[in-house]
Amino acid sequence: MTTTIRPARRDDVAAVVALLADDPLGREREQNTDPLPAVYHNAFDDMGRQGGNTLLIAEQAGRVIGCLQLTLIPGLSRRGMKRALIEGVRVAAAGRGLGIGELMVRHAIELARDEGCGLVELTSDRSRGDAHRFYERLGFAASHVGMKLLFDC
Amino acid sequence: MTTTIRPARRDDVAAVVALLADDPLGREREQNTDPLPAVYHNAFDDMGRQGGNTLLIAEQAGRVIGCLQLTLIPGLSRRGMKRALIEGVRVAAAGRGLGIGELMVRHAIELARDEGCGLVELTSDRSRGDAHRFYERLGFAASHVGMKLLFDC
Repeated sequence: MTTTIRPARRDDVAAVVALLADDPLGREREQNTDPLPAVYHNAFDDMGRQGGNTLLIAEQAGRVIGCLQLTLIPGLSRRGMKRALIEGVRVAAAGRGLGIGELMVRHAIELARDEGCGLVELTSDRSRGDAHRFYERLGFAASHVGMKLLFDC
Repeated sequence: MTTTIRPARRDDVAAVVALLADDPLGREREQNTDPLPAVYHNAFDDMGRQGGNTLLIAEQAGRVIGCLQLTLIPGLSRRGMKRALIEGVRVAAAGRGLGIGELMVRHAIELARDEGCGLVELTSDRSRGDAHRFYERLGFAASHVGMKLLFDC
């Protein structure tokens, strides 16, 4: 079956949220209801307005089966090197183990390279050992500690 | 002595590069020459054009003694929660141990909160044990593995 990787459109947002919620950590964090809370479409619009943000999706036979977010970050460090950040990589439960995540991440890496980035970075929850091995296979090194501060909402 | 935290202007770029180079890892990575390579000012202009990027500096008696970069990242995950990324935190060798880093990071955290972010994240090189303890004291949890893929330039 052919897998297409493309930037998400606004009418893909509900399918992307369904994917984000289809995950042990995401289940607690998302609100995948019908109608979908407006915050999700607002966030998609914010991504477009700011620039440098792409929500990539993997599609098979018209169904969204994977997603990730790629953010380009200009900055002074490392001789003014632009970097790329990958967040929110998800593949539908039914599509796991078929190389769809790899296809998406490789696509994101190529996009980052085409945009002149010198580095791609991501953080992965310590509990996701499989994910770390997956990223190491794609050339990432676990060189850093990823730290988060969550505000009480 | 009063320390002021403020967004950098274009004419602060050389002072910021000097700070980035004044570091065991940065020494190898930066090119702090006079004249400064144009890539640094170009990167500063890119930050302004993209939006969501702030280069904060700490200033004492007109001298730049600290810097960090704050990037706001809109996204769908966690109910459309905006997040903030801190990168490139540096304090001049002569100013270390005086709480300047803490002042800058706390300022960045407050900026992120004011902008509606629900989370602040950063990665720190595994070799910087002191930095991890510093961030944990400010409320960060080392919950993630930070992974990087560097392109051959």
